[in-house]
Amino acid sequence: MAKINANYQKLQASYLFSEIAKRIRAFSETHPSARVIRLGIGDVVLPLPAPIVEALKAASDEMARKETFKGYGPEQGYDFLLKAVADHYVGQGAQVSADEVFVSDGSKCDTANIQEIFATDNVVAVTDPVYPVYVDSSVMTGRTGTIDDKGRFGGLVYLPTTAENGFDPPLPTQKVDLIYLCSPNNPTGAVLSRSSLERWVAYAREHEAIILFDAAYEAFIREPGQVHSIYELPGARECAIEFRSLSKTAGFTGTRCAFTVVPKELTARNDKGEKVPLHPLWMRRQTTKFNGVSYPIQKAAAAVFSPAGKAAVEANIDYYMQNARLIREGLIKAGYAVHGGVNAPYIWLKVPAGLTSWQFFDKLLGEAHVVGTPGSGFGSCGEGYFRLSAFGFRENVEEAVARIQQKLPA
Amino acid sequence: MAKINANYQKLQASYLFSEIAKRIRAFSETHPSARVIRLGIGDVVLPLPAPIVEALKAASDEMARKETFKGYGPEQGYDFLLKAVADHYVGQGAQVSADEVFVSDGSKCDTANIQEIFATDNVVAVTDPVYPVYVDSSVMTGRTGTIDDKGRFGGLVYLPTTAENGFDPPLPTQKVDLIYLCSPNNPTGAVLSRSSLERWVAYAREHEAIILFDAAYEAFIREPGQVHSIYELPGARECAIEFRSLSKTAGFTGTRCAFTVVPKELTARNDKGEKVPLHPLWMRRQTTKFNGVSYPIQKAAAAVFSPAGKAAVEANIDYYMQNARLIREGLIKAGYAVHGGVNAPYIWLKVPAGLTSWQFFDKLLGEAHVVGTPGSGFGSCGEGYFRLSAFGFRENVEEAVARIQQKLPA
Repeated sequence: MAKINANYQKLQASYLFSEIAKRIRAFSETHPSARVIRLGIGDVVLPLPAPIVEALKAASDEMARKETFKGYGPEQGYDFLLKAVADHYVGQGAQVSADEVFVSDGSKCDTANIQEIFATDNVVAVTDPVYPVYVDSSVMTGRTGTIDDKGRFGGLVYLPTTAENGFDPPLPTQKVDLIYLCSPNNPTGAVLSRSSLERWVAYAREHEAIILFDAAYEAFIREPGQVHSIYELPGARECAIEFRSLSKTAGFTGTRCAFTVVPKELTARNDKGEKVPLHPLWMRRQTTKFNGVSYPIQKAAAAVFSPAGKAAVEANIDYYMQNARLIREGLIKAGYAVHGGVNAPYIWLKVPAGLTSWQFFDKLLGEAHVVGTPGSGFGSCGEGYFRLSAFGFRENVEEAVARIQQKLPA
Repeated sequence: MAKINANYQKLQASYLFSEIAKRIRAFSETHPSARVIRLGIGDVVLPLPAPIVEALKAASDEMARKETFKGYGPEQGYDFLLKAVADHYVGQGAQVSADEVFVSDGSKCDTANIQEIFATDNVVAVTDPVYPVYVDSSVMTGRTGTIDDKGRFGGLVYLPTTAENGFDPPLPTQKVDLIYLCSPNNPTGAVLSRSSLERWVAYAREHEAIILFDAAYEAFIREPGQVHSIYELPGARECAIEFRSLSKTAGFTGTRCAFTVVPKELTARNDKGEKVPLHPLWMRRQTTKFNGVSYPIQKAAAAVFSPAGKAAVEANIDYYMQNARLIREGLIKAGYAVHGGVNAPYIWLKVPAGLTSWQFFDKLLGEAHVVGTPGSGFGSCGEGYFRLSAFGFRENVEEAVARIQQKLPA
């Protein structure tokens, strides 16, 4: 008799963005003439830059000729892309070699799947608020108990990350084994300082914990001196796996390509207490359960790292960060307390007193026809906050800000 | 202290195809002038047909314009592709609706990942020989004990599938919960008869087991009346998940697209003994841990189901099946006992008496400079067998057959 994975029944009814989509659908059905502006889900709007599309089409043509056709490729990615990624890291002052890079179809998959190579009884720490995938995948793999009335799962260690502590998560007071850190942060837009990361690396090394460092938004860092890769820090290669994505960086949310770095030095213990390198484990996981990213997509991804690709991608990031500045400054003018938006494409605002995050969502949608993401969807410490995304066309961002200033001043 | 998933240490040192690649490298280094013909790994060689490449390039152009650019798509796939797949099923006499189809980047991933929605203590049955991914992913997820000296994992139920039983696996004598069936079979090339499948469906329904039906090679069936989809059988929608792939069908091994069907009626039990539908569980798994297949790739995949795409793909399959006929007949002429190659692109031959599968591999490589896959790599009942793949250029297939006839008659 087949039985289901009982952990799935611990999950909440609906994934955050599905719930948002449902509420938008319901609103649009009752208000068919309202022009809804979506600054909720962090999805890019600018088209793929020409050098990337040209690479995609040239690779498509290669697939049409028997001399250049590509069948199965290496599961971890083609050398041309691994090398481009490693070179990019080195240019950022992080020591990463090509054979430590694993190409995948998304950081969402990788940040979730990486748990497979660890023991189920490893304790997972997450910030609160947090990108929901870290939590839900921990639940699915049986690393948690059930959910409490604050929306927290037993067995997970939550690190409150709020305005009160400057969005700098405190070190755990109990022992943890796997630590998800996301910087620049989704959803708060905060970037972890070098000294904060030094503290984390020291903690992880002392306790033999592994930092799962999600750097999906590193390309949005605008302040000089901020940390782009955890491998800029001495000792991080012995305690951290880093995830990067082209989704936001290069407009690949629909094109799909990401990278994960597992340094050769990185180890965890086996049942006998021996240190086991994680690189071959992840390699085994990927070669057994993954077949590599589509060849044309890998060629398109490599074009992101060409001089023309880099310039085009940088221009798009500038566009979004200009949006972020407009939202940030527009909301401050409207009386809101705002965070983020300086080194990240997310603005994290405090909702007006007396409202919950979801009440503010409904109010913003109903009165300004603007969609954002309720902070409580990212964890109980996100209650009272709200995320606006800078991924939108300029005219929509400007109109959304104007509507909020007119209809919903704080 | 982070600990590794101890199940990984139960795995054998190396995945079959990595070992083959290693031996070829070693041979080529010592025999640089030998022209090695590879009929080992089942990888296509014919380029993508024009209608598919055109669709890929047209979709790439869509990504270059803001009016047609696509960001995040539905994780389960775009409607245009779901509908094309469902229509194809209906055309084959199988009742599948578009919202039961999940698009993915490969059947290897899906046949492995599907285990996540089931309880870890569910007993898995596999045929022997078997596609190694079913076994290795069962090991990784903790559904097995350790390996014995025959290469079998404790806790897995192996169903011998050999010439002696006509490659028709016997029903398990002990209770099992998840049953991997692959038809047409990789590696034996055998297709399960309708009456055999009726027996399996009846067994699964009686014992509330789930059949994980891998139909990656259904397009290679040439005999009329053979079963292409398990959903052609009454009652299968209540007991089976089906996996299909464009890898071999349409030359997508490097382009990456596959489908999994989870019927709405399909259920398994929860801890309380209640029936729980599996469709929402897989949906939850995919929406949480997957971000959908690249939009241009989905457009290319949809082109496979267009009239022009179907015709082109069919011509390529004919080419490979003509190869299969040449190998099959050529080997029979050389004195070998051969199976498969009629409804599948694989020829499963009996190695000459006194040799193991790996000894025959080394002999074939060393004397005929032809690469195949040792049957023992697929399980202990594959010992004494050898797989040749029909995926190759005609001239190479002809030369490989001629070399075997000259240098290695049975």
